[in-house]
Amino acid sequence: MSHSAIQARRVEELRHRLHAVQLDALIVTFLPHVRYLTGFTGSNGVCVVTADECWFVTDGRYADQVRKEVTTARILIAKGGLFEKIAQRAILKKAKRIGVQSQHLSIAAFANLKRHLPGKRWHHGRQWVEEAMMVKDRSEIDQIRRAAEITDKVFTKLLSIIKPGVCERDVAAEISYWHRRYGADADAFEPIVASGSRGAYPHAHASLKKIKKGELVTIDLGCRVNGYHSDMTRTVAVGKPSTRAERMYDAVREAQARAIEAIQSGVQAKDADAIARESLKRTGFAKHFTHSLGHGIGLQVHEPPRLSALSNETLRAGMVVTVEPGVYISGFGGVRIEDDVLIRNGCGEPLNRSSKELIVV
Amino acid sequence: MSHSAIQARRVEELRHRLHAVQLDALIVTFLPHVRYLTGFTGSNGVCVVTADECWFVTDGRYADQVRKEVTTARILIAKGGLFEKIAQRAILKKAKRIGVQSQHLSIAAFANLKRHLPGKRWHHGRQWVEEAMMVKDRSEIDQIRRAAEITDKVFTKLLSIIKPGVCERDVAAEISYWHRRYGADADAFEPIVASGSRGAYPHAHASLKKIKKGELVTIDLGCRVNGYHSDMTRTVAVGKPSTRAERMYDAVREAQARAIEAIQSGVQAKDADAIARESLKRTGFAKHFTHSLGHGIGLQVHEPPRLSALSNETLRAGMVVTVEPGVYISGFGGVRIEDDVLIRNGCGEPLNRSSKELIVV
Repeated sequence: MSHSAIQARRVEELRHRLHAVQLDALIVTFLPHVRYLTGFTGSNGVCVVTADECWFVTDGRYADQVRKEVTTARILIAKGGLFEKIAQRAILKKAKRIGVQSQHLSIAAFANLKRHLPGKRWHHGRQWVEEAMMVKDRSEIDQIRRAAEITDKVFTKLLSIIKPGVCERDVAAEISYWHRRYGADADAFEPIVASGSRGAYPHAHASLKKIKKGELVTIDLGCRVNGYHSDMTRTVAVGKPSTRAERMYDAVREAQARAIEAIQSGVQAKDADAIARESLKRTGFAKHFTHSLGHGIGLQVHEPPRLSALSNETLRAGMVVTVEPGVYISGFGGVRIEDDVLIRNGCGEPLNRSSKELIVV
Repeated sequence: MSHSAIQARRVEELRHRLHAVQLDALIVTFLPHVRYLTGFTGSNGVCVVTADECWFVTDGRYADQVRKEVTTARILIAKGGLFEKIAQRAILKKAKRIGVQSQHLSIAAFANLKRHLPGKRWHHGRQWVEEAMMVKDRSEIDQIRRAAEITDKVFTKLLSIIKPGVCERDVAAEISYWHRRYGADADAFEPIVASGSRGAYPHAHASLKKIKKGELVTIDLGCRVNGYHSDMTRTVAVGKPSTRAERMYDAVREAQARAIEAIQSGVQAKDADAIARESLKRTGFAKHFTHSLGHGIGLQVHEPPRLSALSNETLRAGMVVTVEPGVYISGFGGVRIEDDVLIRNGCGEPLNRSSKELIVV
């Protein structure tokens, strides 16, 4: 199916959702959602879906680009604000009940919107586009798979780069470099490279600290291919690890394997989180697992469903989620192992192929 | 002055601003503002400033990191939501009139906040922290200067890399690599590398297109040093440029020089924009200058003041702004030249040193 046909189908599916809750229109302000519906890759744009039309509004910087990217929506180029343009063109003249994306619209922008479109009934929600995006079609899965493959290649490359004396930031430089050289658009996020005791920070950015012999190094990296992301973590040992480090590693590896075994279509996202936590409880590390098990991935690095104790989602075939248990011990260090996993009927399929044995470099 | 002393002074200055508009407290939700006030570099945190206290709330992932970074605020680690924690600890018990950052708080988050803190009077604004941040102190200017220096070094490196047959994305890979190797934390943004007719897209991301002889290549790059950013653009010619390309280049260079000459403390931001536009009018290119002249830069890549026809700001000593006129001709290509300029009394000082002659590689 062509991009245009896919986008047209997405807009049509969204219309059904809006119709079901008696909304006359939705103003889509969250850029990953705008991209999902229209193909627009820029940094300023709003999509308006009504019962029989789909409009896209951007500014003059994108006048040229947008005509190539957006083929299934009517395009408007705003000289002033985008909401002002929507009002001027009277796109929403007939719409009475209008949905806005309450998670992705600031109070100030909403006040501005209401000023330009008085007399409407506004409905706040987040779910209308989000729910559709959680389940990926074949072409989306192909992009994520490609991103995961590139990240695997980069990780293999890193094994010859990580050694005592190299600083964390130089490892990050290689990640960004090789992601693009191997065909990605860019990194999905700033790579995390956390060695030794810095491994106790789950989100430590790569610092100028030099990697030392005997340390564990946690590397969290991902890339973007045609808008779709990968997100993988491995922890490697530089020289022979301590017994304590090995025990931590084995515990996390076991917890990740248990969770991946369990996830498939029909499983509750919170149960996947509980399975990993239970596994870490058996080895005494559960209290050091200070975040949730994972998150959906696609046009966003982090998107629904969350795999957490607080999640109400049920996993469905076609979702892609990260599975990333970790153990963080203040003053000592940390271990995290993360794969992107495609949910299928009857099983989960990890899209990453990098080894999960404890690699000693 | 130590980081702690600087942050304490910033909080104190903010209290004066809040007091002046009779606010009892401000809930700071925008992360660059949170960093400015507390030093926190993570991805989830809220700062609450009251008449006599300063609190910082984050989640368990940052429990370890936050104790190193945040020294002048009282720290809370939330198990559930951050607003819930603020309510539980009754931090705002005595506050009646509370400010929120209307540009940086979603409708959904605000609804959640109001649910947790009933009976308050809410005041929406954006200016309280923003205004203070526009004028940089010496240590902030030093960081931006350092970032600009690194970007200059990377640009020099690129001159031996850009040649016919190299694809745009490989140039971007080198930018990301060398920014970190020369000491930056990371890129400030995804580098733009736009060759030939792609130069007509002001925000073209680096593609797989190969650079060809006779083309102009616009490179927009920047890096981050201790949270502070640089942002520079140069357009180079690959082999001898056409007469039309040379004319475009000279026109943009002239417009940028006129604008930089004019900006100093006391000048209206909109007048700076007008000066560049007037200059391009004289050479007939004004209608192809489709964006505003520039923006403030600091802890954010784009921050106030805007240098645009719509801006109400007056330039003041200590502001750092980009000056970046551009000309974009659909089907032909584009030229943009951009420096980070420190506003001083009596003159503007460009922080970039890369040549603005048309370089032919």
